[in-house]
Amino acid sequence: MRVGIVGGGQLARMLALAGIPLGLHFVFLDPAKDACAAELGEHLCGDYDDERLLAQIAERCDVVTYEFENVPETSIEFLSARVPVFPDARALATARDRLNEKSLFRELDIDTVPFVPVDSLSTLQQAVTTTGLPAVLKTRTMGYDGKGQAVLREEADIEKAWRELGGVPLILEGFAEFRREVSMIAVRGRDGEERFYPLAENIHRDGILHISRSRPGDALEKQAQEYAKRLLEKLDYVGVMALELFDTGDELLANEMAPRVHNSGHWTIEGCVCSQFENHMRAVVGLPLGATDATGAAAMVNFIGEIPPAEQLLALPGVHLHDYSKAAKPGRKVGHVTIVSKDDSEATIPDALLR
Amino acid sequence: MRVGIVGGGQLARMLALAGIPLGLHFVFLDPAKDACAAELGEHLCGDYDDERLLAQIAERCDVVTYEFENVPETSIEFLSARVPVFPDARALATARDRLNEKSLFRELDIDTVPFVPVDSLSTLQQAVTTTGLPAVLKTRTMGYDGKGQAVLREEADIEKAWRELGGVPLILEGFAEFRREVSMIAVRGRDGEERFYPLAENIHRDGILHISRSRPGDALEKQAQEYAKRLLEKLDYVGVMALELFDTGDELLANEMAPRVHNSGHWTIEGCVCSQFENHMRAVVGLPLGATDATGAAAMVNFIGEIPPAEQLLALPGVHLHDYSKAAKPGRKVGHVTIVSKDDSEATIPDALLR
Repeated sequence: MRVGIVGGGQLARMLALAGIPLGLHFVFLDPAKDACAAELGEHLCGDYDDERLLAQIAERCDVVTYEFENVPETSIEFLSARVPVFPDARALATARDRLNEKSLFRELDIDTVPFVPVDSLSTLQQAVTTTGLPAVLKTRTMGYDGKGQAVLREEADIEKAWRELGGVPLILEGFAEFRREVSMIAVRGRDGEERFYPLAENIHRDGILHISRSRPGDALEKQAQEYAKRLLEKLDYVGVMALELFDTGDELLANEMAPRVHNSGHWTIEGCVCSQFENHMRAVVGLPLGATDATGAAAMVNFIGEIPPAEQLLALPGVHLHDYSKAAKPGRKVGHVTIVSKDDSEATIPDALLR
Repeated sequence: MRVGIVGGGQLARMLALAGIPLGLHFVFLDPAKDACAAELGEHLCGDYDDERLLAQIAERCDVVTYEFENVPETSIEFLSARVPVFPDARALATARDRLNEKSLFRELDIDTVPFVPVDSLSTLQQAVTTTGLPAVLKTRTMGYDGKGQAVLREEADIEKAWRELGGVPLILEGFAEFRREVSMIAVRGRDGEERFYPLAENIHRDGILHISRSRPGDALEKQAQEYAKRLLEKLDYVGVMALELFDTGDELLANEMAPRVHNSGHWTIEGCVCSQFENHMRAVVGLPLGATDATGAAAMVNFIGEIPPAEQLLALPGVHLHDYSKAAKPGRKVGHVTIVSKDDSEATIPDALLR
C-alpha cells in the first residue's frame, strides 16, 4: 500500500519510519529540495498547491495524510475528491482555525478560556471587556510555536497589538494562569476504534516545546481522555489527534488541537507499546490500532537550532537519539532524545541535556 | 555520515531503519532490482564483485559493513584497501568457513562438537572414526538455513553423503544431542567497549529459524557471554556478532558464529533498550554502544514464504509487525512479529501465529 504525505519534514519522516515495517511505501510532497523525509520514499518537490503534483499523489497513493495543519484548503479539497484523505477536510478546517476549534470545544462542553472573534480595532476593544486583561490576541490561522500572537497586559497594549496583527482574522483569548501545560494524544481508526496515550506534561522555552514527560496514571488523565473522546467522535475523526490543555490547578482548559502527530507525543516511540506514528499509519490505512500502554515513564528533550554531537548524546545511558538530518538553523527543530524509566517513576534527564 | 552495506535484504533494511534516526545515510549493493532495503537509501544494483560499484561505495561511504558472510573475499579485500570495513576481513574469513571457526573455538577453549576437515572419501571414512555416528557432513563455506549439510546415521550414509556434497572443502562434525539451541548476540565498539544481549532460545522448523525467545537471566547466559567475549577480543572485533550454541543439558557447545546481525536477535528491536541493529550501526560508525538490557521477555516468530494479512496480525494485542516488503516465495524469510511481556515472565505467543 502506498501512502501520500503532504509535507516532508520530521513528522513525515517519523511516520515513514513507523510505516515501513508495516510494509507501507511513501510519497512526500514538499517544496524543500532537502526535505528530511525524502530519503524514505519518493519526493515530489513542489508547492503544496501544485495541482500537477497533487494529481500524481492522488493517482499513485491509496490514502493521503499530512504532517501539518496549514496545508492549503484547496489542496485538501482537490485530493479529497480523488483519494481518501485522513484526518478529513472537516477535521482540518476545525483545527486550523482557532475560532472554529474553540467554538467546537464550547459546543462539546470542553472547558476553555473565554474567547471572542476580532476583525477590527473596535471589536478588539469590545472583546477585552469579555476576556479581561491580561489577554492574548492571536491570528485565527497559521500560528505555531508562539508565532502570530501578542499578549495584552494593559489598555495601551490594545492598539499596539492591533497594529502588529490586524488585517487578518483574529481571536482574543483570556489569559490562563496555569500550573502546567499537558497534552493528550489520542487516535481513532477507520472503524471507530479509539485509543488514548498516557497524559504528557510539556515545558516550553522561548515559545517552543522543550521537554515533554509522560505521566502515566496522572490524576487529570481521565478528564483529558474524555475531552479528546468527544472531539474524535464529533468529528468522526481518523488518525492521531493531539489536544493541548492547561492545568490551572482548579480545572483543565482545552487550549488547542492538532489534527496530526504532535511533538508532545514523540516520547511514545520508546515510551509506549505502539507509538503515535505507527498508530497514525495504522489508522489512516485502516489497520487495527496498537496498544497505547506505557512501557515506563518517558521524557523527551527537543533540540532547537542544532543537535549536540552524537558521541556525547549516546554516551549518556539509555538515551535514544532522533536526528532529523536537517541543516542547523536558529529556531528550527532538528532532533530530539528520549529516556524511558524501567518503571512508572519519573525518567531522569541527564544534566548534560538540559543546557 | 554515509554507510555502505553489501547486501540489500531484510538485515540491511533493519540496519537502515535503526541507523536513519542516528542521522546516518545508506548505500546498498545488491544485484536484485527489488532489494527490500533499497527504498531506505541509494541502491547500487549489481553483483557483489562488481569493482566499478565497489569503487563507488568506497569513494562515497565513510564506512562499510555487510549483511551476510558470503560476500566474496576479493570484494572485502578491494573495499578494505580503500575504506574502513567492519567486521574486518579476518573476522569474516573466520566466520565464513566452518573449519576456521571451529578451530578458533578450540583455540579459545570454547567447547564444541568434535570436528575433522574432509577433502576426500578416504578422509571422510577416517573422520567418522573420530566423530562417531551419527555425524553431520557440511560444506565449509556458503551453508545457511540447513543448506549444504548431510546427516550420516549409518556406515552406508558415508558414500551417499560424499556423492552429494564432495568436490568442495568439507567438515565432518559430531552430532550433538541437544535439549535446545540458544544464541548469544554480542557487540563490540571501535574503542573495544563490549555489550551482551540476554540469551535467546531458538526453535527451527524445516531447517529455518521459526521462533526465538529471549531468556533474560537464563542459567547459561554468563557462560555464553564468556564464550562470545573471548571471540570478540581475539578477533579485535567491531560490530554485532551472533554465536549459536547447543545446550546439551550437561554442557554448552558452540555451533557457529555469524559476523553480523542475526535472525535470532530480531526480538531486540522491541525487547531491549537498544536493538542489535542500532548497536551494530553505533559500533561500525564509532559511536558509544547502547544498553542491551531487556525491556521484558520477548518472543519472535518468523514468517517463511508468505506473510499473513496485516489486519489479522495487528488485531492480536501487543504484536509488532516487521514486513520486509519482499515478494512471497516458498522458503523465503518475508517478515516477522515480536511480542514483549511487561515483565521478565515468558511472552505469550498467540495461537494464531503458530499455525
